[in-house]
Amino acid sequence: MITRILTTRFVSAALVVTAAAIAPTNGLAVEHGGPAPITVADLEAAQAGWCAALVAISKTHREGGDAKALAETVIDAAYNYAQAPVLFKPTLAHGKQTFRTTREGALAYFVGGNPAFPGDSGFALKPWAAARPVNAATYIEGNIGITMGHVVFTDTSGNETKVEKTWVFRRGEDGKLYIVLHKSTIPYSPSAK
Amino acid sequence: MITRILTTRFVSAALVVTAAAIAPTNGLAVEHGGPAPITVADLEAAQAGWCAALVAISKTHREGGDAKALAETVIDAAYNYAQAPVLFKPTLAHGKQTFRTTREGALAYFVGGNPAFPGDSGFALKPWAAARPVNAATYIEGNIGITMGHVVFTDTSGNETKVEKTWVFRRGEDGKLYIVLHKSTIPYSPSAK
Amino acid sequence: MITRILTTRFVSAALVVTAAAIAPTNGLAVEHGGPAPITVADLEAAQAGWCAALVAISKTHREGGDAKALAETVIDAAYNYAQAPVLFKPTLAHGKQTFRTTREGALAYFVGGNPAFPGDSGFALKPWAAARPVNAATYIEGNIGITMGHVVFTDTSGNETKVEKTWVFRRGEDGKLYIVLHKSTIPYSPSAK
Amino acid sequence: MITRILTTRFVSAALVVTAAAIAPTNGLAVEHGGPAPITVADLEAAQAGWCAALVAISKTHREGGDAKALAETVIDAAYNYAQAPVLFKPTLAHGKQTFRTTREGALAYFVGGNPAFPGDSGFALKPWAAARPVNAATYIEGNIGITMGHVVFTDTSGNETKVEKTWVFRRGEDGKLYIVLHKSTIPYSPSAK
Repeated sequence: MITRILTTRFVSAALVVTAAAIAPTNGLAVEHGGPAPITVADLEAAQAGWCAALVAISKTHREGGDAKALAETVIDAAYNYAQAPVLFKPTLAHGKQTFRTTREGALAYFVGGNPAFPGDSGFALKPWAAARPVNAATYIEGNIGITMGHVVFTDTSGNETKVEKTWVFRRGEDGKLYIVLHKSTIPYSPSAK
Repeated sequence: MITRILTTRFVSAALVVTAAAIAPTNGLAVEHGGPAPITVADLEAAQAGWCAALVAISKTHREGGDAKALAETVIDAAYNYAQAPVLFKPTLAHGKQTFRTTREGALAYFVGGNPAFPGDSGFALKPWAAARPVNAATYIEGNIGITMGHVVFTDTSGNETKVEKTWVFRRGEDGKLYIVLHKSTIPYSPSAK
Repeated sequence: MITRILTTRFVSAALVVTAAAIAPTNGLAVEHGGPAPITVADLEAAQAGWCAALVAISKTHREGGDAKALAETVIDAAYNYAQAPVLFKPTLAHGKQTFRTTREGALAYFVGGNPAFPGDSGFALKPWAAARPVNAATYIEGNIGITMGHVVFTDTSGNETKVEKTWVFRRGEDGKLYIVLHKSTIPYSPSAK
Repeated sequence: MITRILTTRFVSAALVVTAAAIAPTNGLAVEHGGPAPITVADLEAAQAGWCAALVAISKTHREGGDAKALAETVIDAAYNYAQAPVLFKPTLAHGKQTFRTTREGALAYFVGGNPAFPGDSGFALKPWAAARPVNAATYIEGNIGITMGHVVFTDTSGNETKVEKTWVFRRGEDGKLYIVLHKSTIPYSPSAK
């Protein structure tokens, strides 16, 4: 900042020595605080966590476990519903229930079985074997991190499904990332128009 | 996040393999954007810059240069006056002119000569040879970084003066740090009470 | 904060009087600074501005004006390309050109005519008469504001097209909102599957 | 934003009507989320709370109550020690114990009695009858709010003591403001130099 000005306008040998001498240390430990800034690695870890959790719900369902209970745990750990409505538009949601701003709406989408959401058959109950994010771009500012790209789902027969997916995460006071926006859509196909 | 849950509750060998397979990459470059988060190194560089600039103003004055013009350049490069009033309480400012929320008040403090600020003789015109920050602690959150500690000034005779100093910086859209708060005070001495 | 504690635990008549007496004023004006927080009204104004601009580009095109020049002005005023790649997924973009992280890609989408983007015929050149946002939910944190909902486009024949649209805005240092993410998609239709 | 451009360059009667027609509503409630931005009123309330709490500790001490327990409650409710080291420089702290980055150091300053802080006699145990903040300026950005000015303390004999005081607050996830920096100093007096 000022250093730049001095570099281009005022630097002398003496000043450079001075600059080298002013390292802000007194031999004592300096204490540093504040929330860790969000990194791209944090975003990738949160995405990988979401994908692994989806597969785990599916696998639990196939093996006769309590997929709904696991889905609730996943939603509470991954989405910001405890703090605010979440801007969640799941891939197959449509009509009057396109936007799932409540925890109940998210749960219905993942595991179905809620008469209030008759269109939901449970996206996470499909036979998913794997899911992987493929980012096109990210944006991080303050306490908010955003990703845009695809997620590729592979089912147990080896078939792949690719969706366009955008996530916005915030860091909670517990240090973890929570989803405040999740928009998932089927890619546009000109021929299908 | 979800990864943690899976680690403690659901991990199987299969899942670990899956986790390894979902690295978010497709061979294409992912584009990353957003303001760089403030780091402790950024704060230290800004502090070092302020100290070097003060010494440069003093040296310019001793050598017959235009100390006032340099002080203006320094203030514009280091303080946030172009965006907002600055919460600036210089070491020796007092009475009705304790707080220098305007650029004019900051300039008067550094180089004096402004009849509107009769108490100012020009702090930066004193014969400073060096200045070095000694941080006790820092705090960074969002676009704001804070330091608390001392600055030790050394004059050309080798005498040292230590002040307590707090800075709050913000990162401007140009990427540079700007001072939004600067409070400098003489340390409390019980015997002087 | 502490007030609450005192209210429930320590309040006496004397303390209430004290509380009334400590209004932080000394008769002088207190100066307040810092970026204005983003409000829902700011988000709505930015959305209305985007819609009006789209219609203006279309109208300019119909009337033989320079739609491309207007589109460039609109993109520079509304999108964050000057600061970072923008996470822009336009409604009809697809395949390898799904994501328009560059200003060039955004311009091609709006007005077409760029051989590097052969799939683009110019979305803003269609005969739009009106466009209106219909929000489902918003989220604001720090310097970031997010909307999710629909935009309804009306063409000059009165036909309506409804898309799902998500915007993420940041406030620039000039006080204006800029789009850092824009994802627009055709609603999912179960029957079209 | 774009609206401004249209106002100065493209506005016609038709467009103004359009603008009026695009209010983003569909008759359904729009859900809004996110942390409330910090306001000047929030800062004033937090300051008033701190002042009232100090007086309450003093009064509790005079009346034979458990001033230390109250001070602990106040510190936990008002300072950010649970999240990070606090940049706290109390008025009379000096020497090697100038900066109280730990909760223990803050408590010692307020109520004394800690052999590890031999210079502390308990600032809050002095016979305070009232305290009032007098702000010179504030600055708010993102999740951070800053005040600079004086606090005037009145003891039970009616004597006033004025200190210069700077606070930096953050909003916690519980919605309350917490002090991340507190620097309090005796005003500079030229004659006392």
